[in-house]
Amino acid sequence: MNGPLLSDMDKVPLLEDIQQAALRIQPYLHHTPVMTSTAINELLGAECFFKCENLQKVGAFKARGALNAVLSMTPEQLQHGVATHSSGNHAAALALAARIAGVPAYVVMPENAPVIKQGAVAAYGGRITLCKPNLQAREKGLEKIVAATGAAVVHPFDDYRIICGQATAAMELLEEVKELDMILAPVGGGGLLSGTALSTHYLSPSSRVIAVEPETADDARRSFEAGKLIPAGTVTSVADGLLTSLCDRTFNIIRQYVEAILTVDDAAIINATRLIMERMKIVVEPSAAIVLAALLEKKLEVQGRRIGLILSGGNLDIDNFNSAKPV
Amino acid sequence: MNGPLLSDMDKVPLLEDIQQAALRIQPYLHHTPVMTSTAINELLGAECFFKCENLQKVGAFKARGALNAVLSMTPEQLQHGVATHSSGNHAAALALAARIAGVPAYVVMPENAPVIKQGAVAAYGGRITLCKPNLQAREKGLEKIVAATGAAVVHPFDDYRIICGQATAAMELLEEVKELDMILAPVGGGGLLSGTALSTHYLSPSSRVIAVEPETADDARRSFEAGKLIPAGTVTSVADGLLTSLCDRTFNIIRQYVEAILTVDDAAIINATRLIMERMKIVVEPSAAIVLAALLEKKLEVQGRRIGLILSGGNLDIDNFNSAKPV
Repeated sequence: MNGPLLSDMDKVPLLEDIQQAALRIQPYLHHTPVMTSTAINELLGAECFFKCENLQKVGAFKARGALNAVLSMTPEQLQHGVATHSSGNHAAALALAARIAGVPAYVVMPENAPVIKQGAVAAYGGRITLCKPNLQAREKGLEKIVAATGAAVVHPFDDYRIICGQATAAMELLEEVKELDMILAPVGGGGLLSGTALSTHYLSPSSRVIAVEPETADDARRSFEAGKLIPAGTVTSVADGLLTSLCDRTFNIIRQYVEAILTVDDAAIINATRLIMERMKIVVEPSAAIVLAALLEKKLEVQGRRIGLILSGGNLDIDNFNSAKPV
Repeated sequence: MNGPLLSDMDKVPLLEDIQQAALRIQPYLHHTPVMTSTAINELLGAECFFKCENLQKVGAFKARGALNAVLSMTPEQLQHGVATHSSGNHAAALALAARIAGVPAYVVMPENAPVIKQGAVAAYGGRITLCKPNLQAREKGLEKIVAATGAAVVHPFDDYRIICGQATAAMELLEEVKELDMILAPVGGGGLLSGTALSTHYLSPSSRVIAVEPETADDARRSFEAGKLIPAGTVTSVADGLLTSLCDRTFNIIRQYVEAILTVDDAAIINATRLIMERMKIVVEPSAAIVLAALLEKKLEVQGRRIGLILSGGNLDIDNFNSAKPV
């Protein structure tokens, strides 16, 4: 994608920007609960506070960013609708946002996108165009649609309005739970992580922000350590929401406000997914459970700490989860 | 089991009994949330309010009854601990209750009880004795333990203190959501259903109480229609918490205050379990999802109605759920 075609934000969001985003999207979204689990606390010897974005509209935090982006646009910017390419949660989020704004959403999806995710987009009234499952076909497909319709492209993370929206999840957590020693968030393209880092910097600067990503898709960690963007390449992980590379906007925020980027393997991610479902009785996707995986794998010293964890989404493919057993 | 050895309740609970149970157990349990789902409401053309007992301690409403029973006992009654036989949620619930009361819980479990359920009992400090997986071996095992320890037997449902505890779930729902046209609860031994019926009779007498049970284990429906107790015999269903037969205590309440008992087949139960997990992002066991199954199968006219549904538990065997596909 060529970045947002339309944006009224050209600098790193301030606290006021995040607060305005919260006011803007609040009437349409869930104020998700913060859950705790005695069993998990006892297991870790720490106090964990799970911000349940799996219970958010469309089953993921992505609803926050997409809605903030769409509701920030002028009527002129919105007049031909919005468009994106996505195989996952951003597609459904943009369809929901467009429905709320009363404009069409055009979504290019790879033909191998799970039927359930295509169904979610369609249920929100999104207009789906299927394409071959590669980045080139997706970008080409999007270009054609934009040329034909004049729709405004909304990128899943390379957009400060999106980052602002995602930042509201950590803002809610920090307003509800005080004196967190650290906050953990997963990192893929970095929209959620950079938003989390900004909210924490503004509202609870003494809390450390720690990111977690799959060992097999560790571009964020490598970029972080090298001090320059290193693309992910073609990677795979059970945490299929975290395979994307960072972009300059997200990387620059992450470099400044994130303390460390940890990695865990797929077996640990699957174990954590299972543990959350068994003990907390909520459905999470592996890309969300990864934050708990890092604690279970003792990647951090957590004894006696108060830890916030952003559970980013709950769009688990239940039918295929069983075959993904830990080794 | 030979019924409770010790009981200070010998008549159908009054509203005051249920209110006292609520005060007694409240400090130790979760006030579970009532959830709604726009997607499910749109699908049904009705307003559904899900009382999430899957998010209760031990993952099921059973914690309410067991705790009320144990906390109602005198120190003398409790001095040798408590005992039961159970393959399921009542075992973990009694272990939790005993731990809170500071006395031992002896639980006879069939040797084929899922490892995860044995683990839950052990995690609460329950002392497990394994036996052959049949009722005779379970009762024999319990008898021996009671003879050796002097522990007080706590039956899973044939006990008014248990019924009073289970009644607090519907009481909380009715306090939070007004003007429900009907409340649906699953029925196995009838502890939850009779408690739900009592709370509704006292607090919202115009709301209809409807029960749902598996088609393959329809002893409650047959008893209800015949006007006399008909035992279930050896039955099977994916809703493994609903295979027990009613007892006189529960049947007499159910006859008086329940309007209808509906049945659904296993395929419908599995579909409903999947729908709740996919749309609401919470883990439920088939025995809980059965109430939604009855609505999805159009067993009731629900257009425009306000419907309470008790989601009784979340102890799903995730690994074996996939093989249980709807036909």
